[in-house]
Amino acid sequence: MIKIIKGDKKGKEEYLNLLKSRRTEVDSEVVKTVSNMLSDIRENGDSSLIGYTNKFDSEELNAGNILVTKSEIEAAYNKVDKKFLEAIKKAKLNIEKFHEKQKHNSFVIADEAGKIMGQRYIPLKRVGVYVPGGTAAYPSSVLMNIIPAKIAGVDEVVMVTPVRESLDINPNVLVAADIAGADKIYKIGGAQAIGALAYGTETIPKVDKIVGPGNIYVATAKKLVYGEVDIDMIAGPSEILVVSDDSANPKFVAADLMSQAEHDKMASAALVTTSIEIANKVNEEIEIQIKDLKRRSIIEESLKNNGIIIVVDSVNDAIDIGNDIAPEHLELCIKDPFSYLPCVRNAGSVFLGHYSPEPLGDYFGGPNHVLPTNGTARFYSPLSVDDFVKKSSYIYYSEEELLKAADSIMTIAEKEGLTAHRNSIAVRKN
Amino acid sequence: MIKIIKGDKKGKEEYLNLLKSRRTEVDSEVVKTVSNMLSDIRENGDSSLIGYTNKFDSEELNAGNILVTKSEIEAAYNKVDKKFLEAIKKAKLNIEKFHEKQKHNSFVIADEAGKIMGQRYIPLKRVGVYVPGGTAAYPSSVLMNIIPAKIAGVDEVVMVTPVRESLDINPNVLVAADIAGADKIYKIGGAQAIGALAYGTETIPKVDKIVGPGNIYVATAKKLVYGEVDIDMIAGPSEILVVSDDSANPKFVAADLMSQAEHDKMASAALVTTSIEIANKVNEEIEIQIKDLKRRSIIEESLKNNGIIIVVDSVNDAIDIGNDIAPEHLELCIKDPFSYLPCVRNAGSVFLGHYSPEPLGDYFGGPNHVLPTNGTARFYSPLSVDDFVKKSSYIYYSEEELLKAADSIMTIAEKEGLTAHRNSIAVRKN
Repeated sequence: MIKIIKGDKKGKEEYLNLLKSRRTEVDSEVVKTVSNMLSDIRENGDSSLIGYTNKFDSEELNAGNILVTKSEIEAAYNKVDKKFLEAIKKAKLNIEKFHEKQKHNSFVIADEAGKIMGQRYIPLKRVGVYVPGGTAAYPSSVLMNIIPAKIAGVDEVVMVTPVRESLDINPNVLVAADIAGADKIYKIGGAQAIGALAYGTETIPKVDKIVGPGNIYVATAKKLVYGEVDIDMIAGPSEILVVSDDSANPKFVAADLMSQAEHDKMASAALVTTSIEIANKVNEEIEIQIKDLKRRSIIEESLKNNGIIIVVDSVNDAIDIGNDIAPEHLELCIKDPFSYLPCVRNAGSVFLGHYSPEPLGDYFGGPNHVLPTNGTARFYSPLSVDDFVKKSSYIYYSEEELLKAADSIMTIAEKEGLTAHRNSIAVRKN
Repeated sequence: MIKIIKGDKKGKEEYLNLLKSRRTEVDSEVVKTVSNMLSDIRENGDSSLIGYTNKFDSEELNAGNILVTKSEIEAAYNKVDKKFLEAIKKAKLNIEKFHEKQKHNSFVIADEAGKIMGQRYIPLKRVGVYVPGGTAAYPSSVLMNIIPAKIAGVDEVVMVTPVRESLDINPNVLVAADIAGADKIYKIGGAQAIGALAYGTETIPKVDKIVGPGNIYVATAKKLVYGEVDIDMIAGPSEILVVSDDSANPKFVAADLMSQAEHDKMASAALVTTSIEIANKVNEEIEIQIKDLKRRSIIEESLKNNGIIIVVDSVNDAIDIGNDIAPEHLELCIKDPFSYLPCVRNAGSVFLGHYSPEPLGDYFGGPNHVLPTNGTARFYSPLSVDDFVKKSSYIYYSEEELLKAADSIMTIAEKEGLTAHRNSIAVRKN
């Protein structure tokens, strides 16, 4: 049962408050622990990396078996369900098709004699992808993080993931990594794996950027190495906002809200609807459908603490609330979703109509599922090919063209009081 | 006189060490002070903002005169040098021409019946541009930060800059802001201005992103509000690497090294050359030219502590060093600079040939002068139109298409143990 509020102003206020209440503080004990681990990895490389891994993950790990071998990957293919393999391959093609469109061309401006300038897109050289172990080992996340890096042209995509005691990795994850195109996979996880990627060790190559989700130790390690390498956004608690008119099917809406809520108890699922009937029926449907769901207790806690249904006068009012909230996922379960798309200004990903539920995007459709959370869709973007390239500009002026520009440049330099800047032009003029 | 090292390996090692030695630690006293100021602004809005400004900048400031008026801007036009005005206008056209090329189109994939997906580029709604006061009030920086935001289509570009006791702003800065297209200019600076932009006050609107350079208090405030709003890169100490063969003119190279060194004593100017004669002559030229430069003592200290000349065997060796250093500015003062451009992988901006000195890019040419410093050109890019837009993806499947994909999606959901995700598809299938 989700709480129902009537009125857009009152509803929005309550919604903003519950989202704010999810914010977690930095844990200074975690920062201290992780910070010590990182120094240790930086100074002692492999011996420290393997030490931590022996302690936390598996005593079997050593420098000789840290890299996943070809035969381990082949063995994984033999273990996975064929239906799953086919599904992952289809998803890969869809994700590739979407992300190929994100590529940009370098440009040059060469329309005046003696002047050339431009901007090159250059792929990052080496990227690290972190994949959590245990129940959070999601093959879909492997695809979503690796495929854009490969399409960007990154030379080497290095994946790390923690092993269990017996040195094995979830075969679904291994197969997804191989299909996505991981160049190397190392059996390490936790803050120590982030340190190894950031600083490099004897066996683990230093990368330029680290992406992928992780627990609080992994997220803290990423924050601490930021600057030494680039990182992706630190994912906050996840959220969905469903906008519905009276054309919505309460069964579908209830199912979609719960699919978001099952992620964790901090996840937020909200419905903003023009119909009080839909609001009530969604709550009834939740009671019915939840009985068969494995993560029922998580869903109940998430809906109770972070769920809300707001009843408003119009779809426009609902979209306005969405723009103020800037949700990670926005479903438009309305009659004419395309006509409202241009009104959506702040949302990570938008799901249009009654047959485009969030799991379509999470697993299969093509757009990335790594999205800005916690209201940051105001200024952040979904993970994309852009995150794995950088730009570099260049400029060439001939002697003649520089001399034409010389007075302007020297005038500005003078006004800024930078006489050495002025001098750099002056010596070429004389 | 800059220290000369022979040999690419030895030279690179020494160069990396001197760059590392420039890194500054976080000052916890500054963090504490700024953090208190930000809380104060967040809670008390204008009264706190005006209080700090009365204390640090001008006792004359109040809510009634905090916004720069049209007549103040007109008065500034009457005060500035006409030659300067012309130079700024020309620079603006060049910068616009370059940045216009950075714009991207939203895309849609609509080549299969029942499936539509795409990605929209949406400009940020409101951006804050910080412009320092005093001697660091650089009109060129005003252009470089505002123009890309305007080209991106940002609704409102809000500039802030501290005033002097008499409530006036450097007329060159005001005119540059007006020419660049600032929508509003407020007479505030320091950490309090960053707080006002991040949280909003009664007079200052809350923004989505804050860009622009500032002192340690401003930089710390930007770091602390990051997440609440987006920020640009925090600029580290600046650097230039000049690569030369024996075709280089030592007069030009000496002048260019000093133009970088004059920024501040932490700036680094380096030359990697194939010619020991050029190396020696550059040092002689520095001694001659430095006599006439206003910021002589800064230049001397910067060159002594952070300057280096490395003599190598080939231009390729020099470029390799450049790629390892990833300098903010890279000058290729060589015979055939274009043929080496593709070998440059890590550099913020590249200046090609003997007549394309760094100040051409700083003030006039077109590419942005806000560049990744301190080796971060490995993964960061120059400031661009991209920094003022965000992406948002969307997806639509018809009932028929969703049903075709249903089994694949449900299979992946099952393998991830997320039954509510599976259920969201199942309810639509039944």
